[in-house]
Amino acid sequence: MPLLVMKFGGTSVADLDRIKNVALKVQREVERGYDVIVIVSAMSGKTNELVGWVEATSPLFDAREYDAVVSSGENITAGLLSLRLQEMGVPARSWQGWQVPINTTAQHSSARFLDIPRTNIDHKFAEGMKVAVVAGFQGVSPEGRITTLGRGGSDTTAVAFAAAFEAERCDIYTDVDGIYTTDPRITSKARKLEKIAFEEMLELASLGAKVLQTRSVELAMRYKVRLRVLSSFEDTDENSGTLVCDEDEIMESKVINGVAYSREEAKITLVTVEDKPGISAAIFAPLADAGVNVDMIVQNISEKNYEDHPGSVTDMTFSCPVNQVARARKAMEEAKAAGHIAYDELIVDSEVAKVSVVGIGMRSHAGVAARMFKALADENINIKVISTSEIKISVLIDRKYMELAVQALHDAFKLEAA
Amino acid sequence: MPLLVMKFGGTSVADLDRIKNVALKVQREVERGYDVIVIVSAMSGKTNELVGWVEATSPLFDAREYDAVVSSGENITAGLLSLRLQEMGVPARSWQGWQVPINTTAQHSSARFLDIPRTNIDHKFAEGMKVAVVAGFQGVSPEGRITTLGRGGSDTTAVAFAAAFEAERCDIYTDVDGIYTTDPRITSKARKLEKIAFEEMLELASLGAKVLQTRSVELAMRYKVRLRVLSSFEDTDENSGTLVCDEDEIMESKVINGVAYSREEAKITLVTVEDKPGISAAIFAPLADAGVNVDMIVQNISEKNYEDHPGSVTDMTFSCPVNQVARARKAMEEAKAAGHIAYDELIVDSEVAKVSVVGIGMRSHAGVAARMFKALADENINIKVISTSEIKISVLIDRKYMELAVQALHDAFKLEAA
Repeated sequence: MPLLVMKFGGTSVADLDRIKNVALKVQREVERGYDVIVIVSAMSGKTNELVGWVEATSPLFDAREYDAVVSSGENITAGLLSLRLQEMGVPARSWQGWQVPINTTAQHSSARFLDIPRTNIDHKFAEGMKVAVVAGFQGVSPEGRITTLGRGGSDTTAVAFAAAFEAERCDIYTDVDGIYTTDPRITSKARKLEKIAFEEMLELASLGAKVLQTRSVELAMRYKVRLRVLSSFEDTDENSGTLVCDEDEIMESKVINGVAYSREEAKITLVTVEDKPGISAAIFAPLADAGVNVDMIVQNISEKNYEDHPGSVTDMTFSCPVNQVARARKAMEEAKAAGHIAYDELIVDSEVAKVSVVGIGMRSHAGVAARMFKALADENINIKVISTSEIKISVLIDRKYMELAVQALHDAFKLEAA
Repeated sequence: MPLLVMKFGGTSVADLDRIKNVALKVQREVERGYDVIVIVSAMSGKTNELVGWVEATSPLFDAREYDAVVSSGENITAGLLSLRLQEMGVPARSWQGWQVPINTTAQHSSARFLDIPRTNIDHKFAEGMKVAVVAGFQGVSPEGRITTLGRGGSDTTAVAFAAAFEAERCDIYTDVDGIYTTDPRITSKARKLEKIAFEEMLELASLGAKVLQTRSVELAMRYKVRLRVLSSFEDTDENSGTLVCDEDEIMESKVINGVAYSREEAKITLVTVEDKPGISAAIFAPLADAGVNVDMIVQNISEKNYEDHPGSVTDMTFSCPVNQVARARKAMEEAKAAGHIAYDELIVDSEVAKVSVVGIGMRSHAGVAARMFKALADENINIKVISTSEIKISVLIDRKYMELAVQALHDAFKLEAA
């Protein structure tokens, strides 16, 4: 029997009516001949309520108890959806993490999968169960305590089940109807993609297209799980949404498939840093310790030689989210005071945004960077920092030009046309 | 280390402030040198909300899914109370039914205990845990699914743990401060009892003093678990509340310890029933099948001999809750139509109440019935049905006299005086 994994997020199961709607979508796949594993989130708002109670009870909470409390939301949804399916005549049952069991590490609140043995669920499929409704986001530690995977963990649960049960596909139902070439709120020319490669999705996800959790895409890529993103709130069929798949499945890819952005970025420059072996580690280790998510890093290798700086010096520039600037500044000042690093000045530009073009076609096409820079130059947008990877080029620009830049790049790479 | 079981009901853990208050009570017992097992209910209202969702989703719900959903409430409370205790520096952790494990039968929604192995919890006590916070009302079936014990199951969970862990005492914290000689709303002369025997408590519980679930008292009696009922909302010490214990612990008992009542009773009489072997079974089997809770039964053994009734006949009277009269009538009429029983008339009196006096001292004192009947006669209260057991005498009377009867009996047996 072919098997399908379907995942529904919190807004898709927000109330009993929506749970009914979800049940109809599941029933249709059963009628098409699939055994189905459904991964559910908590009804939207539930997890936040539980987290609020935990934080009010104990500000520095024991993560094991946090996990035991917040995992309840998914258990409730799993039971209710099973009941609804049974009511419609579909043999279904709910599964909590420990019943499967979903074995994870003991890193509470950010646990990682160890393994998902198929025995128990396969046994019930063999007995006539058609749908296993699994509480997402949770697992059980080696010592038998409830764990959670961290926010967005239900996507990852879905992919892990799809891998373990060798599912034909893993359908992620959400509140958007697919992956777009860029944010449709920025340009109405944004086009829904039929297919996108895992690598491209990874770049788009981490760059701010928050449809799928990065971790779930990484897992899907590793196990070659075909992921489909589609809407809970529309009628859907076999061709709905966007398929995230191995690039081999994508016959002819365009050079660029998406334009991503991240609005709240800051650029920090350390001026006149002593340029010697180990200096990067001396700068970025304290930033990491302080929890600063450094993104782009540029070192202007200049052989400047000032009178008061014998030896070579350099400027070091990096970007991070705006709300981490204070933390970054503190970490640098402390490292300087402790004598671990030396610099003349720390300059912060909090008014920048990041815009990126992404596409696996870039690997075999030259001139993408030139085309990108020309499109921005044509709009008089100044580029402050550039960073590139195999399938992505990102630039930092003044925040006020962000929407303009996204539209200009979407046009320049002709993303409107399929 | 001596061990105490403490149980807190839904109103005692209704919000985060009350959970804080519960934590203080638990902390005090730890400071007194006890290892503590706390059994918690769901925050009041939570279970009803979950039951409402289940019933709205599936009117004829699968009890296994019902149990999986409604047991969530207790899990949440257990986690929150553990967090609160930790915050106060008390080493605590939460336990869900499957983690202990609380092994029960697979009768979902009305499961019965099989056993509660001590290993896991004892192991944690040995490692330094001072408080085990256990989710009440739930367990796990032999096939690894979540079960619940039915309403009020948390009291029973508490007693079962007290028995399994040989606790010094099982303290049931609730919204009343103990067991009274009668309902204080009926007479201000009602007095709180310091001690009461299990058998008396059983009669009082089943007669309408709804402080403790009958099942929990039965279990306590069987395993000689000393039960204490006391208030969550008052300052309490070693002498607070009422101790429910073996009668050996009660030095000198009064003849009568309580006056109980049940307001919404009905009396049903089958007139001129053929009196032959098997007739009682023929009447009461269909009533039981129809879910009628028959309480008192009186057969007027009369050797009447009517012309149209050759052989001996009798009248059969029984009582049941008022809201079951329609069901009882239907069952009788169907049995008559099917020829299983014969009677001339079915007379219903829906305006009766039951009043009972209860006391283990009755066993060794004669004249209790006479004293009771005289007290009622002095108030011109007519007795309609009488039934007696070893430690209880119950009468059915007109409902309008119920409060008067309770007060008269409370005075007649001098229950006001300790």
